[in-house]
Amino acid sequence: MPIIESIPNVSEGRRADVIERLANAIRSTPGVRLLDYSADASHNRSVFTLAGDAAGVRAAILALFAVAVEAIDLRTHSGEHPRLGAVDVVPFVPIEGVTMADCVALAKDVGAAIAERFAVPVYLYEEASTNAARKNLEDIRRGEFEGLAAKMASPGWTPDFGPTRPHETAGASVVGARMPLIAYNINLDTDRLDVAKKIAAAIRHSSGGLRYVKAMGVMLEDRRLAQVSMNLTNYEKTPIFRVFDLVKREAERYGVSILESEVVGLVPSAALIRSAEYYLQLDRFGDDQLLEKKLSQG
Amino acid sequence: MPIIESIPNVSEGRRADVIERLANAIRSTPGVRLLDYSADASHNRSVFTLAGDAAGVRAAILALFAVAVEAIDLRTHSGEHPRLGAVDVVPFVPIEGVTMADCVALAKDVGAAIAERFAVPVYLYEEASTNAARKNLEDIRRGEFEGLAAKMASPGWTPDFGPTRPHETAGASVVGARMPLIAYNINLDTDRLDVAKKIAAAIRHSSGGLRYVKAMGVMLEDRRLAQVSMNLTNYEKTPIFRVFDLVKREAERYGVSILESEVVGLVPSAALIRSAEYYLQLDRFGDDQLLEKKLSQG
Repeated sequence: MPIIESIPNVSEGRRADVIERLANAIRSTPGVRLLDYSADASHNRSVFTLAGDAAGVRAAILALFAVAVEAIDLRTHSGEHPRLGAVDVVPFVPIEGVTMADCVALAKDVGAAIAERFAVPVYLYEEASTNAARKNLEDIRRGEFEGLAAKMASPGWTPDFGPTRPHETAGASVVGARMPLIAYNINLDTDRLDVAKKIAAAIRHSSGGLRYVKAMGVMLEDRRLAQVSMNLTNYEKTPIFRVFDLVKREAERYGVSILESEVVGLVPSAALIRSAEYYLQLDRFGDDQLLEKKLSQG
Repeated sequence: MPIIESIPNVSEGRRADVIERLANAIRSTPGVRLLDYSADASHNRSVFTLAGDAAGVRAAILALFAVAVEAIDLRTHSGEHPRLGAVDVVPFVPIEGVTMADCVALAKDVGAAIAERFAVPVYLYEEASTNAARKNLEDIRRGEFEGLAAKMASPGWTPDFGPTRPHETAGASVVGARMPLIAYNINLDTDRLDVAKKIAAAIRHSSGGLRYVKAMGVMLEDRRLAQVSMNLTNYEKTPIFRVFDLVKREAERYGVSILESEVVGLVPSAALIRSAEYYLQLDRFGDDQLLEKKLSQG
């Protein structure tokens, strides 16, 4: 049974009734499960995590759009988080028995359906991107809803699907395919924010570090601890253990040690199994040696 | 859905037709799955791995006994591996949704049924043991089939179930409950067998080491490598990472490093997840953060 995960981000984090209608649109779709959802009032944004086969995930995203396009008006929407559309971003993530290519195909199929059914322009991003300048979500979203009409009229910003002008109330949506993202933080045994910032700069891709790491230094005010806060965007190519070891080594330069690390939210078990293999120097280990995997196959 | 694993060891490793009949006895039982089986001709012994709910596992073990008691005659059996019975050992292992107490109860229930149905005496061992002197498999099996009649007549060796004399052709069986066993080896970057033996002596329970470690030093003749070969009998209380780190530290004393380690056969994924948590200093990690676990619950 193939499993695709999708994590739509919707520009509504305050009206509980709308958030419930969005959740119910997913819940009432056969072939998918709503695994988790949370709303952030200051961001005025909610994030839904759902999983199922391609047909189920497709139907659930379209059902979500129907509610969002009807209930959300970006002209009166404000929040701390940047956004371009009522349904802002829709990534499809391969989990089990599907390839990245399957998720790219699904993103294109769903993107075309969104444009046709709701007259919302769609940009493809990440692995589904058809244009190197429009691979990165931040690049597509720059200017936000307020700057969207001007942006869409400028060269290179014709959407992949749908009208060449923003939807009046729902803006545009960004749809694509990517690897599972791991939110991973390392707390340093210091209150020196500058150290966390220097380490973040050393390890993140944008300033010369590891290819699939986004990182920033932040302060945990209540605990007086500096934290390296990260997103790992491809744990197969840039594994957790390499990030941990590199942060540890960089911290040593400042005489700082690691207090603890944390995974926020969900993590594919493979990301941790690979870490165990690394530290235990496990040779020729195969996932078919995992008891649970063997049991689930029969 | 609760899952119990059982790994019956049968004293037949040469006659392919008998081994197939034994496997088919398990395969044809509803409510269980035969996950794996292998036969060793020099040991003249085969090992079956099956899993299912309590009723399924019970029925499969009794079906296996019916074939083994009919087909195997220990009076003419010889092999390198010590053995007491046609079905030599039957452990029950809690995997999911069952407790050790459930497995102990199952061992007693199945032990009584074996004695009644096949007139084979049964000793309970490990967690199911009713007698401190008969907890350890090696203690029960000492003297083997050939010495069994005399042993059973001596004080303290009345079986837990069944006749007080061996079954004429099938001997006696040892039935019990235990944690999943992990076969774990560490290859040293040396051909010095004495170093592997000294490390094994330092880390194993029997000579003062970690509580749930059995270890010996062996030579991998074809690769000219010394190996610390281990069984980890309770990975929750004596975790893999602690064993690995201790072997590494002991090896340093002799100027030897670890080349690689290996898991032989199956391992519960929790044993590796715990190792990742340890090395990554993961704080407050819960198994409900594993994507696969979340997906399987829905």
